[in-house]
Amino acid sequence: MNKLLNHTHDPAARSWLESANTLCDFPIQNLPMAVFRTAGSHEGFRGGVAIGDQVVDLAALSAAGLLQGVALQACTVCTQSTLNDLMALGPAAWQALRHALFALLHVQATPAQQQTLRACLVPQSVVEYAVPARIGDYTDFYTSIHHARNMGRIVKPDDPLPANFQWLPIAYHGRASSVVVSGTPFHRPMGQSALPGGSQPVYGPCARLDFELELGMFMGAGNALGQTIALPDAENHIFGVCLLNDWSARDIQFWEMTPLGPFLGKNFCTSISPWVVSLEALVPFRLPFSRPAGEPQPLPYLDSPANRAQGVFDIQLEVLIETPQQRARVLRTSFRHQYWTLAQMVAQHTMGGCNLRPGDLLGTGTISGPTAQEAGALVELTQGGRKPLDLPGGEQRAFLHDGDSVVLRGWCEKPGAAPIGFGECRGTVLPALAGV
Amino acid sequence: MNKLLNHTHDPAARSWLESANTLCDFPIQNLPMAVFRTAGSHEGFRGGVAIGDQVVDLAALSAAGLLQGVALQACTVCTQSTLNDLMALGPAAWQALRHALFALLHVQATPAQQQTLRACLVPQSVVEYAVPARIGDYTDFYTSIHHARNMGRIVKPDDPLPANFQWLPIAYHGRASSVVVSGTPFHRPMGQSALPGGSQPVYGPCARLDFELELGMFMGAGNALGQTIALPDAENHIFGVCLLNDWSARDIQFWEMTPLGPFLGKNFCTSISPWVVSLEALVPFRLPFSRPAGEPQPLPYLDSPANRAQGVFDIQLEVLIETPQQRARVLRTSFRHQYWTLAQMVAQHTMGGCNLRPGDLLGTGTISGPTAQEAGALVELTQGGRKPLDLPGGEQRAFLHDGDSVVLRGWCEKPGAAPIGFGECRGTVLPALAGV
Repeated sequence: MNKLLNHTHDPAARSWLESANTLCDFPIQNLPMAVFRTAGSHEGFRGGVAIGDQVVDLAALSAAGLLQGVALQACTVCTQSTLNDLMALGPAAWQALRHALFALLHVQATPAQQQTLRACLVPQSVVEYAVPARIGDYTDFYTSIHHARNMGRIVKPDDPLPANFQWLPIAYHGRASSVVVSGTPFHRPMGQSALPGGSQPVYGPCARLDFELELGMFMGAGNALGQTIALPDAENHIFGVCLLNDWSARDIQFWEMTPLGPFLGKNFCTSISPWVVSLEALVPFRLPFSRPAGEPQPLPYLDSPANRAQGVFDIQLEVLIETPQQRARVLRTSFRHQYWTLAQMVAQHTMGGCNLRPGDLLGTGTISGPTAQEAGALVELTQGGRKPLDLPGGEQRAFLHDGDSVVLRGWCEKPGAAPIGFGECRGTVLPALAGV
Repeated sequence: MNKLLNHTHDPAARSWLESANTLCDFPIQNLPMAVFRTAGSHEGFRGGVAIGDQVVDLAALSAAGLLQGVALQACTVCTQSTLNDLMALGPAAWQALRHALFALLHVQATPAQQQTLRACLVPQSVVEYAVPARIGDYTDFYTSIHHARNMGRIVKPDDPLPANFQWLPIAYHGRASSVVVSGTPFHRPMGQSALPGGSQPVYGPCARLDFELELGMFMGAGNALGQTIALPDAENHIFGVCLLNDWSARDIQFWEMTPLGPFLGKNFCTSISPWVVSLEALVPFRLPFSRPAGEPQPLPYLDSPANRAQGVFDIQLEVLIETPQQRARVLRTSFRHQYWTLAQMVAQHTMGGCNLRPGDLLGTGTISGPTAQEAGALVELTQGGRKPLDLPGGEQRAFLHDGDSVVLRGWCEKPGAAPIGFGECRGTVLPALAGV
């Protein structure tokens, strides 16, 4: 359903809303979704769709008389403060709503349609966002082979890649309660860590605070406990994709994670962008999936013709660090380098019968490209902190300082397609609170 | 609030309901909570309290005119299909409801009270249960030093205990969606695993299916993101304790868990008992917490006078395996051997600012005692499957077979106190479903 080009991808399509026709993240070919309200108000959060510099208020639209049938049904459930019910409706409903909005926002919409829809617009400059779903469970994958090698070298320089990495998309369970929307600041965590050569661990503020560049996917309709989602069907269960920063306290993480994985090193905060981009909007940026010669080929349950033909998404990504003095890009890469596809992650997650529910969040794991400059976390970019980054103005960063903001940005572009963007995912480090 | 003996612990207390006065799990000194309905009906699930062989229907009780004030408020939120709102009210409300029920069920209740309350009783023999809360997040700890040593020996015979084990209660995030109530069968999971000496992993049904004997604790009022729950306050945030079986697919788990911990090896099913026993009911069975001489002492944030004086709960535990041929007890131990206390687990979980929410579930990790016969999982009892257990009638079990049921039971007993029980946590293994 979401794998074919259609009229909503036409790069020549224009909106009657002029701000959507200039180079921006949200042209008429994108139409990502969020939940929003007027900033600082007591309004209820409700669903919205980004167009240019505006938000289409889906609560207003559902009452405006412009929609019918499945599109109206899809719009009506977006009057709630989360998109879970929309996610549960599945791809036909998502597409019906997106196509209806495309028609209403297009220059060929009637003057009456334009006038009515204009009354449903709210400027992005005056709104605030919330996490778009009640997240039942948050899972984080580990699917960049470059990231896995970079991390593996820290503990096993001669054999950095885990034996299972090329056979399955590794994942672990994360913390759903501490997922926050872009713009939410957080306190540097307190924690226990081990100093090299120390006789006992120390308690104090995290000294090696890091970001992790990831994408997140929100699940649509789920599966019953004991059932699987087979690879050919997996993308029908993906509502859309957002930016995700899996903040990491490296000193706490490395001390605690043997043998059962990260816990307090990750669960103090995870930030996501407000806007969720549909797989349909990403169709022009699909690429084939293949394995380098000589590497293990996927087992049959992780292989399908469609995944091979177009399972990969070429999503451009960058990370900026803003300090009180300056703002600097510290990396740029693409999601196309990831070793496993979004569909493979969903199939793997459910292969043993684990049930996914609408609104569940799956992170891709850190996205690091093949070169050192494309690494998706400071611990990799600085070789474990030994080679701090030089920022403009003489500043250096091995790890994050209090007051630093980290901004993730994502977009897609290629000749013959309209470029689309993900907006940004921003978070700011506040000082640690006094401990116990 | 829940640390002192009071009149509800009087071993001489008797109920007018005769079944509560015989040796049973649910005398008047216990009063655990669940959600229930008439089995096979379309009734709504609602809160209930166990007494003898009956359930007090809290929806009926809230309308019966017997309660007032905080107890009535606490009872009224139990008319819902989960206990989350009761959990959020905190220990004063929990105690008010428990004390009111104690008075109404006591032989000294007036004939009118007895008659009215009798109309609120439903026999346990005709009800079914549900998971008692919307579980926002499920966390599993790893706090038995005997279990940690037994598991560590499998991979590091010379140095089995992780370096961090004696310094912090290790934990990882589990899967909330696949937590089910006792009695729910589940399918043996399909998965990927590595055979010794094989050149590539294989896909098939789990061949080393195991149970894990644990306790679970449901959280009461939580903490805001960025805040901590200090050790002296931690028990005020624990609503109560249940039995928990963290089913484990050992072959899948051991192949997938490097470097980020268990995932599909655990997330296909976790079973809990329907009844949640309050910390107040457990007061008579508290014991001091101390560390053996020469071992690391807890860091200050994991140490408090109250935790030292009475942080440990002496809860007796046993596991039975039922096959079509027979039923045999395969282990018996006590929670008193655990290396970290419930309160220390809560304090550790929140030390970095991770927010807990009412209804969150925290597992203790496998409970293994100091002797080989007290190990809380088959992988330990059978030394990794090499020494199968002999069951009556000539049957053997290295790991679980299709059709096997595993039953966890828990109770507390000591001279001078009324014995109380947890009921049981039961699950049955169904054959694997056909794979992809």
